[in-house]
Amino acid sequence: MERSDMLKLVLLPILLAAVGVQGAVKQYDWTIDYAFWSPDCVEKLIIAINGQYPGPTIDATVGDTIVVKIHNKMPTESVVIHWHGMQQRGTPWADGTAFVSQCPVGPEDDYTYQFVVDNPGTFFYHGHHGMQRAAGFYGSLIVHPENITDEPFKYDEELSIIVNDWWHKSVHDQERGLYSNPFIWIGEPQSLLIEGRGAYNCSLVPTGAVANSGDCVTCNASVPQCQPYVLPVTPGKTYRLRIASVASLSSLNFILEGHNLTVVEADGHYVEPVVVNNLDIYSGESYSVLFTANQDPTRNYWAGINVRGRKPATPTGLAILNYLPNPSTLLPTTPTPVSPLWNDYNLSLAQAQLIKAHNSLEIPFTETSGSDKTIFLLNTQNRLNGVIKWALNNVTLVPLSTPYLAAYTYRRKLKTVLSASAPPPLTYTPGYDISSPPVNPNTTAGTGVYEFKLNEVVDVVIQNANTLTVNNSEVHPWHLHGHDFYVLGMGNGVFTSKDYAQLNYVNPPLRNTVPVFPYGWSVIRFKADNPGVWPFHCHIEPHFHMGMGVIFAEGTDLLPRIKLPAQNLGCGLTKNLIRP
Amino acid sequence: MERSDMLKLVLLPILLAAVGVQGAVKQYDWTIDYAFWSPDCVEKLIIAINGQYPGPTIDATVGDTIVVKIHNKMPTESVVIHWHGMQQRGTPWADGTAFVSQCPVGPEDDYTYQFVVDNPGTFFYHGHHGMQRAAGFYGSLIVHPENITDEPFKYDEELSIIVNDWWHKSVHDQERGLYSNPFIWIGEPQSLLIEGRGAYNCSLVPTGAVANSGDCVTCNASVPQCQPYVLPVTPGKTYRLRIASVASLSSLNFILEGHNLTVVEADGHYVEPVVVNNLDIYSGESYSVLFTANQDPTRNYWAGINVRGRKPATPTGLAILNYLPNPSTLLPTTPTPVSPLWNDYNLSLAQAQLIKAHNSLEIPFTETSGSDKTIFLLNTQNRLNGVIKWALNNVTLVPLSTPYLAAYTYRRKLKTVLSASAPPPLTYTPGYDISSPPVNPNTTAGTGVYEFKLNEVVDVVIQNANTLTVNNSEVHPWHLHGHDFYVLGMGNGVFTSKDYAQLNYVNPPLRNTVPVFPYGWSVIRFKADNPGVWPFHCHIEPHFHMGMGVIFAEGTDLLPRIKLPAQNLGCGLTKNLIRP
Repeated sequence: MERSDMLKLVLLPILLAAVGVQGAVKQYDWTIDYAFWSPDCVEKLIIAINGQYPGPTIDATVGDTIVVKIHNKMPTESVVIHWHGMQQRGTPWADGTAFVSQCPVGPEDDYTYQFVVDNPGTFFYHGHHGMQRAAGFYGSLIVHPENITDEPFKYDEELSIIVNDWWHKSVHDQERGLYSNPFIWIGEPQSLLIEGRGAYNCSLVPTGAVANSGDCVTCNASVPQCQPYVLPVTPGKTYRLRIASVASLSSLNFILEGHNLTVVEADGHYVEPVVVNNLDIYSGESYSVLFTANQDPTRNYWAGINVRGRKPATPTGLAILNYLPNPSTLLPTTPTPVSPLWNDYNLSLAQAQLIKAHNSLEIPFTETSGSDKTIFLLNTQNRLNGVIKWALNNVTLVPLSTPYLAAYTYRRKLKTVLSASAPPPLTYTPGYDISSPPVNPNTTAGTGVYEFKLNEVVDVVIQNANTLTVNNSEVHPWHLHGHDFYVLGMGNGVFTSKDYAQLNYVNPPLRNTVPVFPYGWSVIRFKADNPGVWPFHCHIEPHFHMGMGVIFAEGTDLLPRIKLPAQNLGCGLTKNLIRP
Repeated sequence: MERSDMLKLVLLPILLAAVGVQGAVKQYDWTIDYAFWSPDCVEKLIIAINGQYPGPTIDATVGDTIVVKIHNKMPTESVVIHWHGMQQRGTPWADGTAFVSQCPVGPEDDYTYQFVVDNPGTFFYHGHHGMQRAAGFYGSLIVHPENITDEPFKYDEELSIIVNDWWHKSVHDQERGLYSNPFIWIGEPQSLLIEGRGAYNCSLVPTGAVANSGDCVTCNASVPQCQPYVLPVTPGKTYRLRIASVASLSSLNFILEGHNLTVVEADGHYVEPVVVNNLDIYSGESYSVLFTANQDPTRNYWAGINVRGRKPATPTGLAILNYLPNPSTLLPTTPTPVSPLWNDYNLSLAQAQLIKAHNSLEIPFTETSGSDKTIFLLNTQNRLNGVIKWALNNVTLVPLSTPYLAAYTYRRKLKTVLSASAPPPLTYTPGYDISSPPVNPNTTAGTGVYEFKLNEVVDVVIQNANTLTVNNSEVHPWHLHGHDFYVLGMGNGVFTSKDYAQLNYVNPPLRNTVPVFPYGWSVIRFKADNPGVWPFHCHIEPHFHMGMGVIFAEGTDLLPRIKLPAQNLGCGLTKNLIRP
């Protein structure tokens, strides 16, 4: 990092504070390194922050400036950190996406992220380089409003968990398999984790599987790291439970035994309260739910997650809802939570459609406003030189080896390949049969850039289809960087002009992640008002690395005015900028 | 890489050829990526070159220019390649040592090595970043003289093998254990490999361990990658067998059942022929041995390697000496080779002392010439903040995060920490008791630079001592980059002024690696006539990464004149050189 840039980064918060700009400066100093950890009682090398897993929680207030200096101590591996749900307005260089916003931060190198948190809600951060998120490299980012009374609901206390799925193979092994020919799939997870804790092939029931399972020799009370996470509650109080999913693969379903959940926030936006008794949560999503500890206070209850959307092969991930003053070790004797049938997609769709913008949210368009541009993205599984890929409009994403943002900012000096590859198509061939494997299974590779003029209103219709396997289509949660978007609708089958009539222009929720269901579609809208380069991709870790994404470049004529910190450079063609 | 530099690199060989400079240009294009491989019948993720393990052999003639363009396709890991035994005169930037000669080459980045091979002999290349050598990232580099008749010995054909030791744990797991507190040692290897092939816990004897070992389910003829390497010979002919060791940890002993070996070359220099029936080879060393296929031609013979210098816990690594026209699958029914007792160090020392410079080698000094500088390096095991380290004169090497060569070349612009840390001591406290664990086990960290004026003659006395464990001292093969050195002598106990009398100024061998035996010493001499920055370190992979090395900076006043390719930069403080 150039010293002058470093100084700016260090001084900026001080200057901001000095001139009375609102918000505190929250400084973090994080050492990134491998650690041996046993999230599900089986030890494995993970990526930890300051020796912790999950990483430290950032707890901030709207308007705060977050400054995170990272030191990469992994001997040979590089890193970045993506701040999921942060729009990075004015700081597109801090988005933390390898080869999009920055060069990966190499071994022994430092990097300082700095951005303002401008929206209250439940967020998180995670690695966005290779499959490092699946190596345990993530943590919570909670943004509170300035006054709790600003929130359109009431609660006594809050709790927070991140859920995910877990494999015993290293992420290097997993990732190498994905681009092997023949294909080596990662398979279903070995365990499901709540706040980084689970149990491989074990039941938490005391009389349960531990003694019965030869595989589970390490599952016992002597491994503190895999003891179930405890959610302590005082009888009678109402809680806001924040739930975020960083799952690598699985669609998860959350249940709090014996308690209804009132959904009040999704991806950092208030929603009209909805009561559910189980909650589907897709990778990349976050929710706040309210519940009241109003059940029999003499016992504890299960909090559980199960796989939906794929045929489950993984035991329920469990935590303990601990009614104080019961000991947290008092395990429920009731059966562990059972979720709806994994392939009851109508149920999934119905629940997803329940989420509506809170009535306080002003929608800046009407049914007749229209958009400036509509992109139809057909989601297919294909092959590139025999290797299985995911593609959009038959283009699989092979990112530039020079960060896109630098490629735009220094477009003249770098003479990059930005112009070399044709822009991907805005739509797909009408009449494509989504119910069968692709007739032509072959795809082409592309850098995947859609360019938008500043302030263009963009609609994207994501259309799901059959994979390479007969009678198979999968759930894909799509996540957009740099923006929230309005979810105008979701449905089954092929999206046609008739479906415009069923879109929601009245109270569409603002999200940063939207599921697209098997053989179905989802429609989103956003305004390209954030100059920068923003990936839009399936949040399933292996799918993204198999090419399931596109790149949105916004206000490209403004990008040469951005001063990228030198710390963002040093790889690919940005080495051309080295002038000793 | 800067385009202009790239052009120079690409054009240079063409220009050289055009102006009639001797030697061909040999171009290689290597893709570095993980691969699933079963070197000992147990599958593991390794680092392969163009999908091969071991990497491709470079076969060149003295005077050739080698150009190797690498493409790093590992998703998150960086790489370099060190050309072991190449002196890199005039090309110190191409030495391929992470954070010494260059920044590691990041994911998706390219790098082009270019150097002249100026000495015939048996060499190799390997990763020199983290513990990547132990991940299988190595291969042979053979340099032939212009005329075979230039060699001081005769043979009909040649064969070549690289030997090493092998672990099932990933190198990331291994390395993380080494700097953990409490310490997690890598343990003894699971297998020994000859030319990348071995068998875990199996005997090659058909009636042997395969059927008896439950651990060895995968050891069978259906795994071609772990079938024993075959050395085919025609009865009556004489062979030059090249042997190099890239072992991570083990001192190895090589035996060719029923055949004496005549040592004729060591580390790229001819030696006075010596006949042995087993050959100790330390990590970083290479030898050529001659043997004649003059035994019973109706059968095949074992080639075997065993561990010496550590209590062996690993089966013999085996290959097949295949007397043609016998099938290579005709396994010997004789017992597998047995090496001398692992801790008979007097035998090891005696054999090491057998190696003398060939009488054609002119020694540029006499007993009375003296050196300009003598460095005494005391080899101890210590602790730094509780973590076990190796130290020299009580300084453990913690390399700069900016490549040393760039730090010297751009010394003014980078204002690096070169001057911040005091130079390490030239000697250690007289009277240090090498027979006991250190009285003060704590060490300090340092950048380890010894600076030399151009053409200074330097002697180094490496003194071994007891580790942190009572009654334990280990073998350490020390390797110098950028030079060969004269091995003036080796001995037991503390080196004292009396020992000068027993040094060899008459026919000391030129080597690039020298073993230092337990509780013993070795003395080397070299002339600092190669401007650059050169590591001198224990070639045992975990020992180097535990700090067992120093850095020799030569002709430092000349280094600012070197034009480093931009491809060497982009990490650490070299980002200060980025000027968009």
